[in-house]
Amino acid sequence: MKDLVDRLLAGDAIAAARVMSIVENGRPEATEFMHALFPHTGGGYRIGVTGPPGVGKSTLVDKLALKFRSAGSKIGIIGVDPTSPFSGGAILGDRIRMADVATDPDVFIRSMASRGSRGGLATTARQVADVLDAFGKDVIIIETVGVGQVELDIAEVSDTTIVVLVPAFGDAVQAMKAGLMEIGDLFVVNKADHDGADRAVLEIESILQLKAETDWETLVLCTIATEAGGIDELFEAIGRHRVFLETHALLQDRRRRRIESEVRTLVETRLRQELWGPGGYGELSSYVDLVVDGEETPVSAARRILEAKGLVGVFGGNEI
Amino acid sequence: MKDLVDRLLAGDAIAAARVMSIVENGRPEATEFMHALFPHTGGGYRIGVTGPPGVGKSTLVDKLALKFRSAGSKIGIIGVDPTSPFSGGAILGDRIRMADVATDPDVFIRSMASRGSRGGLATTARQVADVLDAFGKDVIIIETVGVGQVELDIAEVSDTTIVVLVPAFGDAVQAMKAGLMEIGDLFVVNKADHDGADRAVLEIESILQLKAETDWETLVLCTIATEAGGIDELFEAIGRHRVFLETHALLQDRRRRRIESEVRTLVETRLRQELWGPGGYGELSSYVDLVVDGEETPVSAARRILEAKGLVGVFGGNEI
Repeated sequence: MKDLVDRLLAGDAIAAARVMSIVENGRPEATEFMHALFPHTGGGYRIGVTGPPGVGKSTLVDKLALKFRSAGSKIGIIGVDPTSPFSGGAILGDRIRMADVATDPDVFIRSMASRGSRGGLATTARQVADVLDAFGKDVIIIETVGVGQVELDIAEVSDTTIVVLVPAFGDAVQAMKAGLMEIGDLFVVNKADHDGADRAVLEIESILQLKAETDWETLVLCTIATEAGGIDELFEAIGRHRVFLETHALLQDRRRRRIESEVRTLVETRLRQELWGPGGYGELSSYVDLVVDGEETPVSAARRILEAKGLVGVFGGNEI
Repeated sequence: MKDLVDRLLAGDAIAAARVMSIVENGRPEATEFMHALFPHTGGGYRIGVTGPPGVGKSTLVDKLALKFRSAGSKIGIIGVDPTSPFSGGAILGDRIRMADVATDPDVFIRSMASRGSRGGLATTARQVADVLDAFGKDVIIIETVGVGQVELDIAEVSDTTIVVLVPAFGDAVQAMKAGLMEIGDLFVVNKADHDGADRAVLEIESILQLKAETDWETLVLCTIATEAGGIDELFEAIGRHRVFLETHALLQDRRRRRIESEVRTLVETRLRQELWGPGGYGELSSYVDLVVDGEETPVSAARRILEAKGLVGVFGGNEI
């Protein structure tokens, strides 16, 4: 293990990829790697890019990464792909749309399949971002493709969250209903050469007025990612948000929240493993049988499990 | 408590509403109510209705409930509403669209705000459905408004899951990417009087061919909910799916999975309360301080928490 960590810290991309696989797959040794790498994290700025499918996020990330590269930053990109519900594989070849940076050795692109995991994906993305951070990446862009809770979780993982929309009537309202309006530090209307871009900006701005006032005034920008239009402005806006976070001591606040989340996840995951076994919920089954047979209710079965695990004594009470 | 339970079992709607509030708010006595009501559950058939915003789900549920009423069933409707990210309140008056059944005493409508809770909403919906079941409702319709993980969780809570779409190019593909295709037992193309309904049906059917083969052949139906068009056919299709579940012993299988989920939730919630305190994550904070100060890593902090809680001894190991 130490060898792999040393090689990663020395800049070996193959070692980094192997550690990411270990972390992503939740292998038992993953925590030891996270433990060893943690002191080397903290330098990477994390940018989340999210929005509905089809708005051009991957192209935007590609152009944005190119811009950061020209400013001398080393880049890590995490693509959280939707999983086809049928095959278990990713259904889009989004990496194709990152042609500009896909072959740059200072850009590390990592795709993660969502695998229908609930809640778990944000944790894994956070841990993979930590690995990229320890690997020396200055800027880590986390792109979520698809819709759902994962889109919202990205805000917890990121320093700056960018919500990407396109000019389409009602798009902003849908995004608000999905909770995206709350999490965006920056809003981008991509494909701004299409009809209705100005109206989309106005629509977003009017909805943002409903948001509780904060010191950061959320910006709405227009881009045409396919031809890198508006990317310089977006780059500058990210810089302004970063300065804002730094001057308001919010950057360390966000890092603290991520650490808290990591500690909590580690403790709860370990407890769940001990409760239900490494293979899932095997032991639970016999208790469920008792409920199905009418001998217990779910509540009394839960009490029996806590008793059987010796947890009632530990916690000094038996009321659930 | 016993009085409230007795009144609920006797058909008192006010008592039922109070118990639902207790369960929804996660009050400490909620588990005692669930324990007392559980033996009276099992008779209510659960139908999940989901789909993107704006496809007319509430109107469809209204007409479907009316149809079930005319067949003599008592109905419970749970509307899982999106919460405005800014106000904490629901942003749509969906109940207005249930004008046909809103005043029927044998139809009980319960709205739940999503409150941005993650994972928790499906649990609460399941518990409220259990209360409606014990309250004597024969059919419980759970409608989720909005997009996200909650939409997917509905399949775990339901016996028959209906995915509602509208004729719009690419809608089926978006739904697939959001994971809806996997969970639907029945698909409805609502607003079928709009252009492109036939194409939408074909699109859905072609995507469904990718689905792993099962004994149940997923049906795709057209409705015009505003004028109750296609509701009879939908009603019949639900009946066919119910018979299918019953003859394949799948109905008890789904109930078993819900029970398992309930037991697991009860145990894990109790452990989390004991770990982090009733108020959330208070104690965690001092451990996070140590990580922020560089004295611990998240992994070593998690180990210290398990030690401090006496859980290392219980589980007989200290490796996280």
